Amino acid sequence: MMLVERVLSGDIRAAARLMRLADDRDPAARAQLAALFPHTGRAHIVGVTGNPGAGKSTLVDMLVKVFRSKGKTVGVVAIDPSSPFSGGAILGDRIRMQRHAEDPGVFIRSLATRGHLGGLSRSTSDVVTVLDAMGFDMVLIETVGVGQDEVDIVRNAHTSVVVLVPGLGDEIQVMKAGLLEIADIFCVNKADRPGAERVLAELETIQRIVTPDADHAEIPILKTVAARNEGIAELADAVLTHGDAIRTSGAWERRESTRLADVIHSVLRERMTAEFEARMAELERTSDLSRRLLARDTSPYEVAADLLAALLPSAPPQGD
Amino acid sequence: MMLVERVLSGDIRAAARLMRLADDRDPAARAQLAALFPHTGRAHIVGVTGNPGAGKSTLVDMLVKVFRSKGKTVGVVAIDPSSPFSGGAILGDRIRMQRHAEDPGVFIRSLATRGHLGGLSRSTSDVVTVLDAMGFDMVLIETVGVGQDEVDIVRNAHTSVVVLVPGLGDEIQVMKAGLLEIADIFCVNKADRPGAERVLAELETIQRIVTPDADHAEIPILKTVAARNEGIAELADAVLTHGDAIRTSGAWERRESTRLADVIHSVLRERMTAEFEARMAELERTSDLSRRLLARDTSPYEVAADLLAALLPSAPPQGD
Repeated sequence: MMLVERVLSGDIRAAARLMRLADDRDPAARAQLAALFPHTGRAHIVGVTGNPGAGKSTLVDMLVKVFRSKGKTVGVVAIDPSSPFSGGAILGDRIRMQRHAEDPGVFIRSLATRGHLGGLSRSTSDVVTVLDAMGFDMVLIETVGVGQDEVDIVRNAHTSVVVLVPGLGDEIQVMKAGLLEIADIFCVNKADRPGAERVLAELETIQRIVTPDADHAEIPILKTVAARNEGIAELADAVLTHGDAIRTSGAWERRESTRLADVIHSVLRERMTAEFEARMAELERTSDLSRRLLARDTSPYEVAADLLAALLPSAPPQGD
Repeated sequence: MMLVERVLSGDIRAAARLMRLADDRDPAARAQLAALFPHTGRAHIVGVTGNPGAGKSTLVDMLVKVFRSKGKTVGVVAIDPSSPFSGGAILGDRIRMQRHAEDPGVFIRSLATRGHLGGLSRSTSDVVTVLDAMGFDMVLIETVGVGQDEVDIVRNAHTSVVVLVPGLGDEIQVMKAGLLEIADIFCVNKADRPGAERVLAELETIQRIVTPDADHAEIPILKTVAARNEGIAELADAVLTHGDAIRTSGAWERRESTRLADVIHSVLRERMTAEFEARMAELERTSDLSRRLLARDTSPYEVAADLLAALLPSAPPQGD
């Protein structure tokens, strides 16, 4: 049986193999992802993001249990560099998988935040394609919400849960930098800690400022204590309610279109990067580029203009 | 007098204007940055990075004072989204500038972490070009060390200071994700807090594991309490010592080459992104792309392959 057919039949080992091929940018992976794509579009993709230390890993684990109890199958992509489950990604997979090892309705994949700019986004979307094609009802993406790359990943989810905790002091500042705009649900985790009321009050202020529209109805603010399984059922319900709401409003399709355009862009960006590196190596060989740059005989701005003229001959030279 | 000449003569308002033009991607900025470039190459570029809450802003402010007391002029680029000085970047500039308003030897520029993937890296290098051309001896780049974009910026500094604090619990995990490899100096800030000894012990373990080479001599581990001005002079000395060491070893030129290649790449990446967006808009108009993707009549992988064939006709089709 071909790898694609094995993935579609739910073969976990085949899925893991394809994810690995895709992550390694093996040329064989592209055709197989393209073959899987017609089988996608059903999964509810949920981003869970927040500061390091917000307890996202525990929260995601508890959410998995609630969704399973509702009969939903769940795929997880863990890309939080501060999570004990990624970084040492393989070990992390093993630990998490063991907890759900008896349950074929759960599949967990950790991604390391290594590699080229934007590569994380590409790897994530490839994993989502595989999980969606396999028929998982829910796909949870756990990521730290600080870098642009990570924020972009969560922005492309159908439902974005932004997790805050009392006492970090700079929650609201971080959100100003981009998380505020992407939140569909606010979750104050570790809500039994001192300072929870202040965070809740700040979020209520934000809730009043943000104008509800089709993409963002009034943003629910939920309290959880993930480590004690408090508030998780309500959070799961809010996620499902949001999914239903955007399916009805048409926002689901808009988000899906944006997400798929970003998949296209991430593939192109990586290929262009490879092309760029080849051209730079050629310039180094033929014209001693580094030495000329260090000697200030030419500037990065001029080299970039020349490369652009070669790569995109039809584009106008002005502007960059 | 032309803008470039005014910048070279040390005109702060002209410099701020050019930085703004560059940040807005005004086509006029490129030629001016190219004209400034021959006047660059003297500044010692120092990255200061770490988790939100590590106290980087205070640390950078104190470092500025020490470098000034040594007669060195200092430019600062603040791009930490959790810093009260960025996000609300304009307000932040005002607050910080006021503190050094009497001192023409200090120039502070905040950058928001908005915009396209990689745009932050581009904006940062443009600001560094301006500050370097103006003759600032030191250029300090303050950034949160979690996202790939932010890590890449610090990677390109001549000297990278990784700031940790006791009690966050996940310091070492974060570093595994990429910060460990780029550290030239470890700084344990808020070293009067409980848990400082544990962080120091962990760093000493890392210090023993990392093999010293021309780029990374044995990594110094320093303790500071920035809010009380403790250990800052020693940190400043370690930064200057590292700068001297890599100038002697040849690592300075290697890092500078990598940094300038990244400037070229960031300009190209932005231009390619604009081209991509134009092509996608055309596909939407001429072939109803979103509808076909949503209906799974085509896949992002196939669309990407077609776009690549059009954009890079000479490149081989296999691989991506």
